Amino acid sequence: MTRPLLYGYWRSSAAYRVRIALNLKGIDYEQVPVHLVRDGGEQHRPSYRELNPQRLVPILVVGDTVITQSLAILEYLEETGPPPALLPADAAGRARVRSLAQIIACDVHPLQNLRVLNYLTGELGADDGQRIAWARHWVCEGLRALEERLARSSATGAFCHGESPGLADACLVPQLYNAVRFGCELDAFPTVRRIDEACKELRAFVEAAPEAQPDAA
Amino acid sequence: MTRPLLYGYWRSSAAYRVRIALNLKGIDYEQVPVHLVRDGGEQHRPSYRELNPQRLVPILVVGDTVITQSLAILEYLEETGPPPALLPADAAGRARVRSLAQIIACDVHPLQNLRVLNYLTGELGADDGQRIAWARHWVCEGLRALEERLARSSATGAFCHGESPGLADACLVPQLYNAVRFGCELDAFPTVRRIDEACKELRAFVEAAPEAQPDAA
Repeated sequence: MTRPLLYGYWRSSAAYRVRIALNLKGIDYEQVPVHLVRDGGEQHRPSYRELNPQRLVPILVVGDTVITQSLAILEYLEETGPPPALLPADAAGRARVRSLAQIIACDVHPLQNLRVLNYLTGELGADDGQRIAWARHWVCEGLRALEERLARSSATGAFCHGESPGLADACLVPQLYNAVRFGCELDAFPTVRRIDEACKELRAFVEAAPEAQPDAA
Repeated sequence: MTRPLLYGYWRSSAAYRVRIALNLKGIDYEQVPVHLVRDGGEQHRPSYRELNPQRLVPILVVGDTVITQSLAILEYLEETGPPPALLPADAAGRARVRSLAQIIACDVHPLQNLRVLNYLTGELGADDGQRIAWARHWVCEGLRALEERLARSSATGAFCHGESPGLADACLVPQLYNAVRFGCELDAFPTVRRIDEACKELRAFVEAAPEAQPDAA
């Protein structure tokens, strides 16, 4: 695999997922920081928009291939990169892992990202308390469902699915990071927290952490 | 494949995606309607929550396998169901199709679904105009990005990717249906509209339409 280029931002939870996956697979990559706040947001520059009309991070560039959307990137790495696998071998297991990942990637994260919070405080005139309550509400809703799914399934192991980290864990850890930022109460999610802690023992996750990135504030 | 059971709602855009995929693959299935509004929403019943702690539709049940999250269901059908394929054969093409689908499934639909609109008008006290403006804003943002991606790529054909409908088209058509419901101005999205019209020529899409479902109001 040509050495990939990752356009991201240290605190972007979607970019954080991709860093974890690249590290788990031991793929060497180069980072291109895109500052989401400075100067009105570097993601709005024409040169960036040319790469991604959505003006969101991350983007992974591998040779001529430009991939946006973190879950599409993770699946691409799974299909083209080296082991370990991020998805189990059986279709039912793969569906379970993707479903767990999508609880976060579809139904939690998009509701609490920067552009949405900006709309709330801008167009809707929400105050800071309402902004935080909104973020906490959707994060807790998602974590509650995730906890229920993980706690009652025998497929859950040390990680979201069995005894090795994968695609769902790569989504869970960044979402927990955001939950803490928003001051969510996490006591009700013991399984989620246990898995988060198990992941953070691993170098792939430690080195992907926001604060460990070259562009961290 | 055991005859699948689809828990859905006629107007749910995520259930609509799954109906399209099942029809494209010619998989016979049984529908279990879950009324999202009546009696405070049947998705909140304990028996439903048991199946899906997120209390969202759709769920696909195939034998002992219970799958939530529409994109996970689509991938499962792709891996276990009959042809035609919903994803191209090459990794870069697959990444492109997934990325297009996720623009809708991650960054548009979750922002304009029922529970979010209810929070806006409830907890945040948004009026009807603000609710509609919110939905239109996020739908238009997503469609603008989608249009840019589709219009400038030589991989776009009669459909989102080449000359046969697939996973991205199964997301595009239901989102356009919602865009119309919210009164979005669609003139700026000629490629998206062209593909939507091409899809609607096909029986798989016609038979998946909300108004064609047994539980349609």
